[in-house]
Amino acid sequence: MGEFSLIRRLRLAGGALPPEIELGPGDDAAVLLTERMGRRLLLTVDDMVEGVHFIENTLTPRQLGRRCISVALSDIAAMGGDPAWALAACGLDPAKWPDDRAMELFAGMKERLDEFQAALVGGNLTRSERLFLSVTAGGYCGDEPMKRSGARPGDLLVVTGSLGGARLGLDLLLRGRRPGDSALIDRHVDPPARIGEGRMLRDVAHACIDISDGLLQDLGHLVDQSGAGAVVESASLPLPDGRDGSFGEQESILAALTGGEDYELLAAVPADRAERLEAIRSATSTPLSVIGKITDGAGRIDVLDDKGAIMQVTRPTGWDHFADKK
Amino acid sequence: MGEFSLIRRLRLAGGALPPEIELGPGDDAAVLLTERMGRRLLLTVDDMVEGVHFIENTLTPRQLGRRCISVALSDIAAMGGDPAWALAACGLDPAKWPDDRAMELFAGMKERLDEFQAALVGGNLTRSERLFLSVTAGGYCGDEPMKRSGARPGDLLVVTGSLGGARLGLDLLLRGRRPGDSALIDRHVDPPARIGEGRMLRDVAHACIDISDGLLQDLGHLVDQSGAGAVVESASLPLPDGRDGSFGEQESILAALTGGEDYELLAAVPADRAERLEAIRSATSTPLSVIGKITDGAGRIDVLDDKGAIMQVTRPTGWDHFADKK
Repeated sequence: MGEFSLIRRLRLAGGALPPEIELGPGDDAAVLLTERMGRRLLLTVDDMVEGVHFIENTLTPRQLGRRCISVALSDIAAMGGDPAWALAACGLDPAKWPDDRAMELFAGMKERLDEFQAALVGGNLTRSERLFLSVTAGGYCGDEPMKRSGARPGDLLVVTGSLGGARLGLDLLLRGRRPGDSALIDRHVDPPARIGEGRMLRDVAHACIDISDGLLQDLGHLVDQSGAGAVVESASLPLPDGRDGSFGEQESILAALTGGEDYELLAAVPADRAERLEAIRSATSTPLSVIGKITDGAGRIDVLDDKGAIMQVTRPTGWDHFADKK
Repeated sequence: MGEFSLIRRLRLAGGALPPEIELGPGDDAAVLLTERMGRRLLLTVDDMVEGVHFIENTLTPRQLGRRCISVALSDIAAMGGDPAWALAACGLDPAKWPDDRAMELFAGMKERLDEFQAALVGGNLTRSERLFLSVTAGGYCGDEPMKRSGARPGDLLVVTGSLGGARLGLDLLLRGRRPGDSALIDRHVDPPARIGEGRMLRDVAHACIDISDGLLQDLGHLVDQSGAGAVVESASLPLPDGRDGSFGEQESILAALTGGEDYELLAAVPADRAERLEAIRSATSTPLSVIGKITDGAGRIDVLDDKGAIMQVTRPTGWDHFADKK
């Protein structure tokens, strides 16, 4: 089947669109009515590339679809916005991706978008030897969104959920385990998009970022852009469930500090608003952990061990998540 | 150098942003003020993949940057909108793309966006063995945009510029010729984005599409979505300059009918508004050619030769542009 018959099937499977979408997929561009949006439009794009962000055949097409949407929506969450729509550019090999399989990929995207009443308003299909999924997400925000800048010395460092699970889950996959075997693998396969948490944190936090490249890496962006420093207490890191006998304490702490793709939120919250975190916990059922503080140490991040001594941890320099595993 | 130092350099090179952009690149998401936009927001995404849409090392990084923007803006042109911003997701191999080379790629994007007073508001960098560039473009439109549907029997088929040049230019590249050798190669390397033409056609045309996959392919979309048919007079096709002795008449006509990536506009214009095309010609200095008519032939497209007989032409079925050349 050709690219266009697939696009036609996708269009028919699209379903109802939110009222601000005057024209959805199927034309040269989607058309949205601006007076029906929030006062601010948030825009972000994220990619998933086979062999870089996931391993071929470890995720089902539906899981891949869900995951690429979650990853993009996580950036909207980090600003405290409400996701509203997405466009998906997909590079795939038609020989490996017959139409029914590709439809599953899009069904996964739609499933995840539906959870947030967001719509797929457009996309592009192109041939590519290696699968890539590039998702642009749009969200709305009435009030001032949370930025990476704005953290002040004394602010508490707060993270949602748990850290390191996606990295440990990926390790299990690389050892031949399969999705369903472990809650850790689920963390890699189906990461959260902390939309509700971000929306509530917006009224509380001075700054926020989502943890896609690992805590230390992303905390680095937050302190750099805030002109501040930070101290992290490793004993306070929320480690994931399901580690069983597979991973020791030290390995888990290292994963929590440097492992990527957890897609939790990291916020700098003024200490005198700490009691407001409880309302977010109870409204979202998501754990919130205070893992350290913002300092005036211009770009310096200290990680303390359980005795309060400074640990030596190497911060990776970027270019994606399991580069060193290839 | 790492991904993040490159992102920092890009941010510093960004320059001033239009007033509706409250927050540009560098945070989790860009922030745009909706009350400063047009009444309608147009959204589109397009991809360029090495080996599918262009051949490695035939385009300079700056040309690649320009081209991926043009391709995305062409969809905004086809709706009659004004481009306003873009997000660029780039998959590249850091070993082949040292920071200075990547900066050139982004300089090309910015150069092309600047021509339309549009801004790069965000992006993503990821590792990929093969280069891919996925550009999401946003534009504004006050009035009703042009759709693919809406063409009516009797409407004139009008195209901007010339057709087939990008395909013939690609043929020259595949034969080892280089950019600068021929105006045809320029058509492949640096396609237009017919923004001014689209904006003026919006007041005149019943329907419009940009020609990215070849005239017959894209005319097919236009007639399918309009519930109509069409007849094309091959003798009226605007063939490109610079064919010299390299390509004969028949080969050129075939390229004009089926060659992709010309990024001209194809509009259905009511016959009684034909005289208004002259104003568009003179305002934009772009040729506009009447190449046929919309009919009531439900999905049927006839191509007539110079004697008025029906030509047999096979319409390709999609999956990109030089699939058959690989």
